[in-house]
Amino acid sequence: MRLTVLAGGVGAAKLLSGLVQVLPQANLTIISNTGDDFRWMGLYISPDIDTVIYTLAGIVNPATGWGVRDDTFHALERLAQLECATWFQLGDRDLATHLYRTHRLECGDSHTKITLDLCRQNGVSASVLPMTDSHVPTLVHTNEGTLGFQDYFVRRHCSPEVRSLSYQGIEAARPAPGVIDAIRLANAIVLCPSNPYLSIGPILAVPGIRTALHETRARVLAVTPIVAGEALKGPAAVMMRQLGEEASASGVARRYQDFLDIFVVDCRDEHLQEQIESLGMEVRIEQTVMDSMEARIALARRLVEILA
Amino acid sequence: MRLTVLAGGVGAAKLLSGLVQVLPQANLTIISNTGDDFRWMGLYISPDIDTVIYTLAGIVNPATGWGVRDDTFHALERLAQLECATWFQLGDRDLATHLYRTHRLECGDSHTKITLDLCRQNGVSASVLPMTDSHVPTLVHTNEGTLGFQDYFVRRHCSPEVRSLSYQGIEAARPAPGVIDAIRLANAIVLCPSNPYLSIGPILAVPGIRTALHETRARVLAVTPIVAGEALKGPAAVMMRQLGEEASASGVARRYQDFLDIFVVDCRDEHLQEQIESLGMEVRIEQTVMDSMEARIALARRLVEILA
Repeated sequence: MRLTVLAGGVGAAKLLSGLVQVLPQANLTIISNTGDDFRWMGLYISPDIDTVIYTLAGIVNPATGWGVRDDTFHALERLAQLECATWFQLGDRDLATHLYRTHRLECGDSHTKITLDLCRQNGVSASVLPMTDSHVPTLVHTNEGTLGFQDYFVRRHCSPEVRSLSYQGIEAARPAPGVIDAIRLANAIVLCPSNPYLSIGPILAVPGIRTALHETRARVLAVTPIVAGEALKGPAAVMMRQLGEEASASGVARRYQDFLDIFVVDCRDEHLQEQIESLGMEVRIEQTVMDSMEARIALARRLVEILA
Repeated sequence: MRLTVLAGGVGAAKLLSGLVQVLPQANLTIISNTGDDFRWMGLYISPDIDTVIYTLAGIVNPATGWGVRDDTFHALERLAQLECATWFQLGDRDLATHLYRTHRLECGDSHTKITLDLCRQNGVSASVLPMTDSHVPTLVHTNEGTLGFQDYFVRRHCSPEVRSLSYQGIEAARPAPGVIDAIRLANAIVLCPSNPYLSIGPILAVPGIRTALHETRARVLAVTPIVAGEALKGPAAVMMRQLGEEASASGVARRYQDFLDIFVVDCRDEHLQEQIESLGMEVRIEQTVMDSMEARIALARRLVEILA
């Protein structure tokens, strides 16, 4: 089965770490959100791509779900002495990725080519693709003004109230090479349990991607990021409420209603089944909380069975 | 005594570490060679400035004379996995300096301002000034073609035969702010026992600096980098021979003949005294080999006595 996965960061990486125990990595294409990309100290950083690659390479920090396992922070400690803002935690080994990517971008290489090389160099045989080669930073418009994503998410800990979101420059962006084919030619497509605004939203906003999801003959499945009205991680539920939407699996399903075939809902939300089915999609009730590696693999196995 | 010092890297740092035991740091202005500056992985690196600042801050790696004490190399190890050339050894703590400098240069700050801030942030009360704010890379023209300085010095271990040197763009360069005043207003000037071509040569080649050395009322003293026909460190003697000059203290003295008042020669070269005096300068015979901290302080103390 050739599987194409739309992925954000840590939540997506959990599901992916299960999927690669069930399917050969080489059968996976991962379309990664790049709306979180940002510059820090001149470095171009792609947090979601790095989280996915580090996870598939088996070198991710298991305590955080991002960054490199057993990393040191000597460069960052020195930068603090040099009076630099160091609220974005970058380990020394992690820094190598950012230096490498930034340098190659400056040399004129594309985000896609660099990402595929990073996969190969890290022994990852899945193909990770940025959603676009353009820089389309997510802007969070809040009661305290417009903030860059990392500023909102990391520095401000999601505390300002969100009024709306935008993906700067997205109208002019094009899907990265391989992205549309990965959607058209896949046997199945999975939307990870990632934030619908901050992770999946930017991917769907790249012109051409949503249309390809309509047109593909592959079945499109999403796993809910909201369980019992709360996000398992991150600000998804809070944001849905702030944006005047229902913070529930149903609320998420509505955002994907136009192209989604199957929505995987958590056991705790079984009562939403009829409501979501009425949106015109199949609903599967599963244990979606990936609180152990066994749970990740079990969920991955169920998804593959459903899609087979 | 307000002392201005023309300095290269490791050899200069040795003498400086002695001088700051004899004089208050705040009385020292160090005009640093920047001909060795280069870009690596997009980072702008100023090896001589960093060596001097790390030394005066007391954080230099005592084993090498450059880099930061007890540094780790985790970023570099990862870059090697990413198939990057890693012949230039950059530690993680050292990397912070390069990220900081590169980022501030990209933000439009001057090399001088950044260097002075690095002094302050590292607790260095001496003023370290780049010789110029322009990028004037030293090019080494060899029997194997033209090489950048680091390429010749670090990657090729000085093995190609040197035919000539040039300092790219030097004609248009201007002394950095403060450099000419530091020469004009000093009580005394010291040229460190640094390579006359690769370290002192670029400083003297910045238009205006040599003239200021002629015109200053301060006494100008140089310490020989050549003892008994050999450089204590680095390729100075080999290069002098390759360039058809005499690899001796006399050969070095001739390069500074037009502005030098006092040349400090090693005890082992006492026989050169008359020959060098005939060039029109005072000669002092001293123990110049700084093989211990005591030797550095002793030499520094002698220089201050001579110049007092």
